[in-house]
Amino acid sequence: MSYVLQVALRIKKENVDAFMKKVLENAAHARGEPGCRHFDVLVDPKDPTHAMLYEIYDDEAAFVAHQATEHFKKYVAEAVPLLESRERIVWSLAR
Amino acid sequence: MSYVLQVALRIKKENVDAFMKKVLENAAHARGEPGCRHFDVLVDPKDPTHAMLYEIYDDEAAFVAHQATEHFKKYVAEAVPLLESRERIVWSLAR
Repeated sequence: MSYVLQVALRIKKENVDAFMKKVLENAAHARGEPGCRHFDVLVDPKDPTHAMLYEIYDDEAAFVAHQATEHFKKYVAEAVPLLESRERIVWSLAR
Repeated sequence: MSYVLQVALRIKKENVDAFMKKVLENAAHARGEPGCRHFDVLVDPKDPTHAMLYEIYDDEAAFVAHQATEHFKKYVAEAVPLLESRERIVWSLAR
């Protein structure tokens, strides 16, 4: 069953450009993973510090595989510290 | 530029089955629209009254066209009254 992850992000104001560069890099790599069906990076048009990730994986195992990749580890080490907050919500796809 | 709509939904407990049937009908029709690129219906695996829509349109005009369709009007007339709450958030796709 599809595994959908929504990540609500608040970026520290001074880190917006640096964070966006790294999250888009991670997204581009993730879309190349066999188990990743969709990976969008969204920004609030009225507030560049307010962003969201929308990710779809074949199943939970594909998401676990995503977290073992070098690009995700790099994202966690370099991009996540630039954030104010990060809330992860798991959804089921009713379609 | 892509127009992304996230709709956070709370369904009245007694209306979950009725609402899900109607929202999935609307979603299936919407995916057939020329300007609709993605339309997902998500449900919280821990709480069936908590749902979300994730919609991507070519641009705002395509979203306006979506709202003029018969299936959307039917959804607003028949499904929306079954809800506790409905919050619409517009995003820009950074990709």
